[in-house]
Amino acid sequence: MEEGIKVGKKAAAIRAVDDHVKDNQVIGIGSGSTIIYAIDRIVERVKKENLKLICVPTSFQAEQAILENGLSLGQLSMYPKLDVAIDGADEVDASLNCIKGGGGCLTQEKIVDYCARDFIVVADERKDSEFLGEKWKRGLPIEVIPMSYKPVQLKIQNTLGGTANLRMAAKKAGPVVTDNSNFIIDWIFDGEQDWQKVDTFLHSIPGVLETGLFLQTAKMVYFGTVEVIIGQIIGGGKRKT
Amino acid sequence: MEEGIKVGKKAAAIRAVDDHVKDNQVIGIGSGSTIIYAIDRIVERVKKENLKLICVPTSFQAEQAILENGLSLGQLSMYPKLDVAIDGADEVDASLNCIKGGGGCLTQEKIVDYCARDFIVVADERKDSEFLGEKWKRGLPIEVIPMSYKPVQLKIQNTLGGTANLRMAAKKAGPVVTDNSNFIIDWIFDGEQDWQKVDTFLHSIPGVLETGLFLQTAKMVYFGTVEVIIGQIIGGGKRKT
Repeated sequence: MEEGIKVGKKAAAIRAVDDHVKDNQVIGIGSGSTIIYAIDRIVERVKKENLKLICVPTSFQAEQAILENGLSLGQLSMYPKLDVAIDGADEVDASLNCIKGGGGCLTQEKIVDYCARDFIVVADERKDSEFLGEKWKRGLPIEVIPMSYKPVQLKIQNTLGGTANLRMAAKKAGPVVTDNSNFIIDWIFDGEQDWQKVDTFLHSIPGVLETGLFLQTAKMVYFGTVEVIIGQIIGGGKRKT
Repeated sequence: MEEGIKVGKKAAAIRAVDDHVKDNQVIGIGSGSTIIYAIDRIVERVKKENLKLICVPTSFQAEQAILENGLSLGQLSMYPKLDVAIDGADEVDASLNCIKGGGGCLTQEKIVDYCARDFIVVADERKDSEFLGEKWKRGLPIEVIPMSYKPVQLKIQNTLGGTANLRMAAKKAGPVVTDNSNFIIDWIFDGEQDWQKVDTFLHSIPGVLETGLFLQTAKMVYFGTVEVIIGQIIGGGKRKT
């Protein structure tokens, strides 16, 4: 029900923007398929309400969207403190811990999202889990310095178990390269984890730049839900901390 | 006494190489002024003893030295486990914790050095301290993703105190750029620190790639010392874990 998922994403994105974006704010703009709807809504409101907003991108994709939509681009060296950041996630657990980076963007997202007073997540309801890994099966993305990928893989597998795969581009033509010119390792894990401990361990490995774990940082998550009422698809849904 | 320091460095480097480098090993080759003497000694022994060594560089500088001296170049994707790594340091405390990165190389050094069974440090005796910061006053080097330098500076100063300076190139023409295309922040701290805690905290800041802290990893440190005996400068000195 792809159409329904889109409707849900859009409804959640609109709700997040309407609840959290106010005049004269500095906003972090996330990456991913759901955020496109948030940007559309921001553009709509900027035009209609004449909002003065500075938009700080979390990726090249976000930067392009900001520029193409005529929004005011800002950067962290000028605005190191953001009011709000709106971003997607690949999975969100019951305590609002997130896994991000399935699409390859995680370090810049983390840098920007962590600068926001309010970090708001928007996702469709398939991302709503009790614990991380319950639904998301593509592993924890970890961004690494290219020359370190082999020892990092070995260290992870020997210490945490599971499998640490170097993410390859389509048709295995080469590794996926991030916005920061690094590689991504996807750690396929089994069962529930002590994520704070896992995160500290991963950061202790030389060559690891960032993990896709966003622990206890999201203030609120909006999940898109879908209902069909009198033949019409209705999007909605919300969840708080 | 610059000449004396050179003699001391050379004596320590020779001793480190002679004690730890053996035939058929994979060796990590560090960076810095002292390591040049270690490379000279390795080249000498390879020729004389016909040693079969694979040399893995910790920096572009080390790679150049390996190539120029006709040694066999290796990389971590092929040799993720090293027998020995020989590297310099800016300061070494009583427990063999080190600060490195004064010259700008720290991440690649850390990646390589941590892959070695035996991480051996060679330095002149001015680097020998009771606690980190006792003699080294240029701060703790921290490699960061360029876009994050401002929020990282603020986070460090607000949490740890001290001053977090962006390292600038000569004549302040621009920031110093690392081998990984990142920036360096030098954290000027005061007094003794709980370094394990500081390191974990710094790694938890999004945008921080690596710190110049090498904690409890050195197996042995060779300090060059100098004596003048009957008008001749004699280098020597040694210290163990």
